[in-house]
Amino acid sequence: MTGPRDIPVEDFRRAGTRVIDWITRYLSRPEEYPVLARVAPNEVRNALPASAPRSGESMDAILDDFEKIVVPGITHWNHPCFFAYFSITGSAPGILGELLSAALNVNGMLWQTSPSATELEEVAVGWLRRLLGLPEELEGVIMDTASVSTLCAIAAARHALSDLEIREQGLAGRPELPRLCLYTSDQAHSSVEKAAITLGLGTASVRKIATDDEFRMDVGELRKAISADKAAGHRPFCVVATVGTTSTTSIDPVPAIAEVCRREDLWLHVDAAYAGSAAAVPEHRAVLAGCGEADSTVVNPHKWLFTPIDCSVLYVREPDILTAAFSLVPEYLRTGVDDEIRNYMDWGVSLGRRFRALKLWMVLRAFGSDGIAERLREHIRLAQNLATRIDEHPDFERLAPTPLSVVCFRACPSALNAHEADATLNRFNEMLLEQLNASGEVYLSHTNLAGRYALRLAIGNLRTTERHVARAWELIQEVSDALVKEAAAR
Amino acid sequence: MTGPRDIPVEDFRRAGTRVIDWITRYLSRPEEYPVLARVAPNEVRNALPASAPRSGESMDAILDDFEKIVVPGITHWNHPCFFAYFSITGSAPGILGELLSAALNVNGMLWQTSPSATELEEVAVGWLRRLLGLPEELEGVIMDTASVSTLCAIAAARHALSDLEIREQGLAGRPELPRLCLYTSDQAHSSVEKAAITLGLGTASVRKIATDDEFRMDVGELRKAISADKAAGHRPFCVVATVGTTSTTSIDPVPAIAEVCRREDLWLHVDAAYAGSAAAVPEHRAVLAGCGEADSTVVNPHKWLFTPIDCSVLYVREPDILTAAFSLVPEYLRTGVDDEIRNYMDWGVSLGRRFRALKLWMVLRAFGSDGIAERLREHIRLAQNLATRIDEHPDFERLAPTPLSVVCFRACPSALNAHEADATLNRFNEMLLEQLNASGEVYLSHTNLAGRYALRLAIGNLRTTERHVARAWELIQEVSDALVKEAAAR
Repeated sequence: MTGPRDIPVEDFRRAGTRVIDWITRYLSRPEEYPVLARVAPNEVRNALPASAPRSGESMDAILDDFEKIVVPGITHWNHPCFFAYFSITGSAPGILGELLSAALNVNGMLWQTSPSATELEEVAVGWLRRLLGLPEELEGVIMDTASVSTLCAIAAARHALSDLEIREQGLAGRPELPRLCLYTSDQAHSSVEKAAITLGLGTASVRKIATDDEFRMDVGELRKAISADKAAGHRPFCVVATVGTTSTTSIDPVPAIAEVCRREDLWLHVDAAYAGSAAAVPEHRAVLAGCGEADSTVVNPHKWLFTPIDCSVLYVREPDILTAAFSLVPEYLRTGVDDEIRNYMDWGVSLGRRFRALKLWMVLRAFGSDGIAERLREHIRLAQNLATRIDEHPDFERLAPTPLSVVCFRACPSALNAHEADATLNRFNEMLLEQLNASGEVYLSHTNLAGRYALRLAIGNLRTTERHVARAWELIQEVSDALVKEAAAR
Repeated sequence: MTGPRDIPVEDFRRAGTRVIDWITRYLSRPEEYPVLARVAPNEVRNALPASAPRSGESMDAILDDFEKIVVPGITHWNHPCFFAYFSITGSAPGILGELLSAALNVNGMLWQTSPSATELEEVAVGWLRRLLGLPEELEGVIMDTASVSTLCAIAAARHALSDLEIREQGLAGRPELPRLCLYTSDQAHSSVEKAAITLGLGTASVRKIATDDEFRMDVGELRKAISADKAAGHRPFCVVATVGTTSTTSIDPVPAIAEVCRREDLWLHVDAAYAGSAAAVPEHRAVLAGCGEADSTVVNPHKWLFTPIDCSVLYVREPDILTAAFSLVPEYLRTGVDDEIRNYMDWGVSLGRRFRALKLWMVLRAFGSDGIAERLREHIRLAQNLATRIDEHPDFERLAPTPLSVVCFRACPSALNAHEADATLNRFNEMLLEQLNASGEVYLSHTNLAGRYALRLAIGNLRTTERHVARAWELIQEVSDALVKEAAAR
């Protein structure tokens, strides 16, 4: 080899074919792996040298180590019994979209640096908007994660306080500025609080509004909090509602919240990262009720729309506010067509932008709107069935409503003689989860609901079928029964 | 099809093979395409329907449209004559790493959600740290872009002002808080100012320190600005130095800046997004001189280290400050091993984290440290040769030093009879750039250097060889000569 060169293209073809073969086998039988990785801390790291090799190595050697060292340390989000957090799918069309994006390796910061990256992004977010029944006037942009989408939305909300000149003057060292208050429920995602930290608002400016017994924001409490803050001389500026909270997928009453925001002139941001996709199912379109009135809404196709991580779509009613908050165009980024086109670098924090629209576009085409609705409908049906079985079983109880595809429940075996709020039940369910996950057959996660330790079983993977949910439910009962017997024997 | 299903795996294999074949052909002859896309605004968008199809479509139909509609709107960053911005390479090993990441589709937010994602990240950033000769005690984390890495670094710097309790109390509505001042040069990347906006510091808190005649931060001016701010009752807290500015790749005197920061107790962040990689070349290791003392340094493997976009590595001296600034762990994200391992979600804004370490690890292995050094050395040699030719030509002049692989220059044809500062020269060079890029043979970008319109020719693609730079230089002369003749004929 002399001079600058990539590896030979024929090596790429050979290695690429090997990788496609490996993925084909992997995706056809993810059940052969334990769901949750079984490596000990530092096991993967210790299997690798401390420095890069001096000479380049063959792709075959690298792929051998990938299979031998990396794969055993993978927790298989593709496993049909991955039920933790939000169960997701990087579908085949999405994987190939990501592959093509990596090969093209364009930076879509400017329209000119790849018109297709910008325009396919406009097309894909437009398709998604129609699929979800959101109003035509909303404009979308793709970001990496909902954390960043929400951060940018709240930054736009802050910028909308135009009299305060925050972009120029900032927040610090200005005695005339009031405290800026942000409202969200006590069930909201941690990214809301993280955004408040990042934006310099502080956690103390986040009002965590109490929720009702179905974990939905209490709008009366919201109104009271806003009044109290105004009376105290603070400046309310933004409400973040959640459609599909992370713990229980509860859905805040967005229409009523929108009404409050309209009256109080507050920015309404809706975090519909997970549940927004459900609006693609005609009979579930109402999950996004009221979001058409929101100033911004985030939906993550990488959560429940079969798109490989990362892909988060932020819709905004007035993109001019978002771009006014973020746009900064140095000379070297000016182009002759800036007035005719959209430069997405102006829509957020990151200048560099991966071509994420391609995979989303390919997913939407490969499944079609009917195909997407059918799949999501089935996930919801599987979860509802499980909820019914849990409700029917005397030794189990649901701890939250199941509006979509996530079931929150716990074991409450009568043999334990435990009271409702007994710490015994929490310890029991913690052990239950630990043993379930150690089985390698399933992976569930947990949450805490009003002091009660709850197991979360989330359905969202395209490989999950009736059989897998049935097996999980069987295993949950088996492990619970065994734990009860163990306890009795002690 | 019944129930939830991905497309059949055999369809994936067939389509995957087609995509690998397409990429193989594409990477073996990117010169068949015009570098800069020739589509008109909205041409790509108008070629596509307004909604997603109702029924799913075949991968072949989708890939046909990819080739027919999307590719013509691509600006080819893989073209060996892509010399704009920073020229980059998504090398073959990196492409395959991205493909595997998409297939595994893990979210590396927690160690438990894929130990290999976390530990391979530790390994890859460790390898890179050694490759660049940075001190062993620096810890690294992979983010998407330098914009976000710098944002997080400055957020950590702000958090390090522990007496101010900014995480909890924020910046607004606190009369006791001083203005927080951030120092960077007038050549710094726009992401520094964007971070100041996002973090609520405001553009007015960014002190753009003047640079010397080689576009490097003037440390005397930095000292003066700090003193003036302290005298005015403001609170200096952070300096962002640049190793390889975006306009000219100038290198700020980091050792002297580090000395100021040490004395003034300021956080030093170094933006080495592009030029940091040069430290992999033993004889250029000095580009990172002083960075070992910085509190944080960002290097982007997706810029000049052959890794597909996006991959930005942030090194920090005290990760505890970064995690203290960002960590927020709700109940549903607690795991039993939190004390033994690292949960990278605590290291920045995004909770969701793509498995970016895999591609970086594969790139470092495939090329090896010697192979990387050899390739970067050649890029630098090509740029230095071009600089010499420009210097030797009476009708061209360089407008900045060429420390690495980017050459800033302009045509100054004697026949134009233009003075040094003449707007005629600026207009001439603007036309020159426009015609060069319209040729489809090359793509250069521009900048403004002390009022002078400068062409930027950046070398950094693995397919760029002597021949391509020679052709670009030939074309530049041809187009310039033709423009001079045209001007004379008028």
